Amino acid sequence: MNINLSKILIGKSLRTDELKDEKFNVFWGLPILSSDAISSVAYAGEEILWVLVPIIGLLSYKYMFYAALCIVFLMFLLVFSYRQTIDSYPDGGGSYIVAKDNLGTIPGLVAGSALSIDYVLTVAVSTCAGTAAITSAIPSLLVHKVFITVALIIIMTLGNLRGIRESSKIFGIPTYLFMISVIGMIVFGIIKVHILGYTPKPSYTIPNVSGDITLFLFLRAFASGCTALTGVEAVSNGIPSFKEPSQKNAKIVLELLALVILMIFGGISYLATLYHAVPNLEVTVVAQIAYQVFGTSIFFYVIQITTAVILIMAANTAFAGLPLLLALMAKDKFMPRQFNKRGKRLGFSNGIITLSLFACLLVIAFRADTHLLMPLYAVGVFISFTLSQAGMFTRWVKSKKRGWRHKAFINGLGCLVSFVTVIIIGVTKFLHGAWIVCILVPLIVRIMLKINKHYSIVAEQLRLSIYEKPKHIDLAEQKRYVIVPIDTLNKSFLKALNYARTISNNIILFHVSVDDVATAKLLKKWDEYGVGIPIVVKKSPYRNIVTPLVKFIESEEYAAGPMDTVTVVMPQFVVENWWGNILHNQTSLFTRTMLLKERNIAIVTVPYIIEE
Amino acid sequence: MNINLSKILIGKSLRTDELKDEKFNVFWGLPILSSDAISSVAYAGEEILWVLVPIIGLLSYKYMFYAALCIVFLMFLLVFSYRQTIDSYPDGGGSYIVAKDNLGTIPGLVAGSALSIDYVLTVAVSTCAGTAAITSAIPSLLVHKVFITVALIIIMTLGNLRGIRESSKIFGIPTYLFMISVIGMIVFGIIKVHILGYTPKPSYTIPNVSGDITLFLFLRAFASGCTALTGVEAVSNGIPSFKEPSQKNAKIVLELLALVILMIFGGISYLATLYHAVPNLEVTVVAQIAYQVFGTSIFFYVIQITTAVILIMAANTAFAGLPLLLALMAKDKFMPRQFNKRGKRLGFSNGIITLSLFACLLVIAFRADTHLLMPLYAVGVFISFTLSQAGMFTRWVKSKKRGWRHKAFINGLGCLVSFVTVIIIGVTKFLHGAWIVCILVPLIVRIMLKINKHYSIVAEQLRLSIYEKPKHIDLAEQKRYVIVPIDTLNKSFLKALNYARTISNNIILFHVSVDDVATAKLLKKWDEYGVGIPIVVKKSPYRNIVTPLVKFIESEEYAAGPMDTVTVVMPQFVVENWWGNILHNQTSLFTRTMLLKERNIAIVTVPYIIEE
Repeated sequence: MNINLSKILIGKSLRTDELKDEKFNVFWGLPILSSDAISSVAYAGEEILWVLVPIIGLLSYKYMFYAALCIVFLMFLLVFSYRQTIDSYPDGGGSYIVAKDNLGTIPGLVAGSALSIDYVLTVAVSTCAGTAAITSAIPSLLVHKVFITVALIIIMTLGNLRGIRESSKIFGIPTYLFMISVIGMIVFGIIKVHILGYTPKPSYTIPNVSGDITLFLFLRAFASGCTALTGVEAVSNGIPSFKEPSQKNAKIVLELLALVILMIFGGISYLATLYHAVPNLEVTVVAQIAYQVFGTSIFFYVIQITTAVILIMAANTAFAGLPLLLALMAKDKFMPRQFNKRGKRLGFSNGIITLSLFACLLVIAFRADTHLLMPLYAVGVFISFTLSQAGMFTRWVKSKKRGWRHKAFINGLGCLVSFVTVIIIGVTKFLHGAWIVCILVPLIVRIMLKINKHYSIVAEQLRLSIYEKPKHIDLAEQKRYVIVPIDTLNKSFLKALNYARTISNNIILFHVSVDDVATAKLLKKWDEYGVGIPIVVKKSPYRNIVTPLVKFIESEEYAAGPMDTVTVVMPQFVVENWWGNILHNQTSLFTRTMLLKERNIAIVTVPYIIEE
Repeated sequence: MNINLSKILIGKSLRTDELKDEKFNVFWGLPILSSDAISSVAYAGEEILWVLVPIIGLLSYKYMFYAALCIVFLMFLLVFSYRQTIDSYPDGGGSYIVAKDNLGTIPGLVAGSALSIDYVLTVAVSTCAGTAAITSAIPSLLVHKVFITVALIIIMTLGNLRGIRESSKIFGIPTYLFMISVIGMIVFGIIKVHILGYTPKPSYTIPNVSGDITLFLFLRAFASGCTALTGVEAVSNGIPSFKEPSQKNAKIVLELLALVILMIFGGISYLATLYHAVPNLEVTVVAQIAYQVFGTSIFFYVIQITTAVILIMAANTAFAGLPLLLALMAKDKFMPRQFNKRGKRLGFSNGIITLSLFACLLVIAFRADTHLLMPLYAVGVFISFTLSQAGMFTRWVKSKKRGWRHKAFINGLGCLVSFVTVIIIGVTKFLHGAWIVCILVPLIVRIMLKINKHYSIVAEQLRLSIYEKPKHIDLAEQKRYVIVPIDTLNKSFLKALNYARTISNNIILFHVSVDDVATAKLLKKWDEYGVGIPIVVKKSPYRNIVTPLVKFIESEEYAAGPMDTVTVVMPQFVVENWWGNILHNQTSLFTRTMLLKERNIAIVTVPYIIEE
């Protein structure tokens, strides 16, 4: 039943050699890797206005334009930088790899953990925003928003567990719909004013304030707008999931992405100025524009719906990105190696599941409130930008290849600006939650180092030199000590005893006594049975079965001498239905677990199957 | 650390032979086994008035008196009945045993499950009522009431895990305080009116209604008052926890209990009449009386506090009762046998933990609201009363011992009245929640029967007749098939291989290939290594390690012939810190679990310890 269920939800298993079929081309690569970046544009402009309007009123639109320019400039820096990264890192050049390669392990891990945090936040923030869009349409659902958000995450998890290609189709289409409808709105919006000569009448009055622009204010506006650039990272991280030629395809997608962002972000900012949209808690800037452009026609609702959908879908970028990142870090032994195993459908299932788990926890902890999550957001992504570009910068400086100055300049500049952005975001959002990231990053880095240490210790101790040959063994002269624990004299025990007798002549039967009456009964029965092997009895006043047995075996082990391995033959009867096991004290299991910690002991389990 | 913590909370382990020291005498037996019964008196009278006052107003007190009489009469029936039970069942005569003995298994199980449900409800209801008392004193805590209730349950659980004697001391004292203060109030309350000639001025006016008493109304009042009798059961169920002579002590406790209930219940009912207390949502009847008797003096608060405390402590009766009941049912193989194992401190830990778990779930599910839980309550206890007395009745009728008519009459009458009560409670409360009990009881009974069937099947198949001697074995002529799975060539594997070679000459190395490159590398390395044992390679396109291995072993097993046992030697490296295990794919563990389901396979685990 369990298996069937997973078949229905996740689909039939795929063979490893079907892997290449699972990769995507430019057409599907664009939406699946960029829905985050594209969707964030929907609120980036508004974020800027939220900072400016309350202080400098009408002047805001002018400075929003400048801020937008800076962001677009920063974006192109990032795009150029990442084009260079893609060239240098054919197997996927996330900030983690770039930073690790060129700046060393710690910076790499910092980038990796910062990015991981941000991926989780992407899922949480986007789904919450999507739910908010839904609930503001149907207020009666407001009470269930946590439930709805979690449900959305689960649906996306299943979609992604089904595999890359399908998920790109599931999640790609809405992205295209959003792009088309928004660009349509921009074009028509401009035509309506400049050609049809429509004069916009703002539905909200701009506060009559005469504050003056300050550098800090402008930087804050810029920082808030930077959310537009979250997700750019994903493309260069996702190179391996592209069809050949993957590098070329990735670069094309990256450029297309830049183009789309430029158009949408620039367009919306321009329309906001044109139609004097004023940010407020009831209606989003995009909605205000859409309303003025389309009135209450069908197109207005198309914009609203596609916006809601893409916000939810944005989360999918993280589902495409984080599992890959985790797999990379697992390959380098900084994460549990399970993250580097492909699931039934060839996706990195463990990463997908982990992501959705943490996202759900965040959503529940923050009661699906976007405004509580926002401050944690975007810090991580810009930390990773900074580090990856610092990495590229040092790379060029070191390499001194032809034209390195030009390339180093681009990355250096990008690094600088990203760094400034980090500082700004950090400062302006610190008390509102950015501090959490400041605690989490070093913590995660520490854990990753611990994991790495563990793996290297294990590898070190397991390594086998060519000279350590297996020792010569003569079966005839073997002297093996075999201990068979006996609780009650039954068929399961007899089977174990028989097996023990096939591997050794010196067998010790061992009984832990918690109940004198029962013990006496056993000894009597065993005596009548007359096999002639004596039973060693140890009393256990504290009703603990395992410890005395282990103690005895340890002592026996000593008697046997360090060279010889003691064999413990454990009878274990196996019930076929899962719940059956609940009904039996798993003594044999416990004993085994404790014995595993002893050297020179081999544990033999002789199963006896019970049919029902 | 873990162990130390449990030491601090639960105390050091106790030896089995310390068991008798853990039993309690009459003085401590009374409070620990009766706090439920005694505390329920605190609201029984009020429950009656809640039914009557709104309909027949001033007449209520007259009929409350009659109802109280009936309940006291019923109580004495129960006491007599249970004295007879204690005489006939020295090892504890809960309704479960009595019904099972005399009416058969099913009735026994019905009684057992009904009682179990009621024990869980006792914990939930009492702690909620206690919390309500606290929160009505400190309203600011109201928002945390679920948390508080759960905390209370956990504290009680720890107390009980510490062991019987101590818990009786922890929980006995408040019971005595309550008894003393309430009896004091009754005495002084009567003196104040009849000797000091104080004329009570009711603080609440009795509704001016002229409804007339009907049989049904009276019966409902009676039924609601019956909550006063919940918990009487506990004494005869708890005989084994009494010091010798346990039967005599139990009977004394039972009589004392009856006396206390008579005094408190009768006294409060009388005072309620005397002082014309009117039930309302703000102030409890007891509080109203206390206020008129003591004013706002310290004694008023003593009454309030002790009431709150004993309500919480009442839950402890269930903690004393249910684990014993479960142990009994486990002994009869109707419950998982773990319930019959004594914990470190000789209490039935598993029962205690299970009880508190379910109680907590109930509290959370019903948001710690007593009024939502009440309707489920008391049905179970009267079902069990009915069955146990029906049992005793048939017992006498069958036995025909001297004076059986008299005894049978008592039990028969008790049975009849209990039965009527069940019907009344069931009918009046069905839609409010009693239906849940009606579903749960048969469900639990079904599960218990399934458990029993399982145990008997296992026992049947394990039973060994004296004639099934171990087969003769000649070590020399033994032909053993040994399979050693190889993933990577390392020390752990070498150790396993060495062990395998000590028990057999025909060894098969088996490798599951998920990655052709890795496999080629392994084969090359193994070739260079030159031990001369070939490796069997099986490709696994679906990246599943376990299945191919199992398949192969099954086939090998077949080749080996059903008579011969195939031995699988599994290398397993053991990391010392618990979290280390998370970092490794537990292939060997999975394989083992799946192999256990195969007949004629012995699994040898050769541990290789990694030090850190």
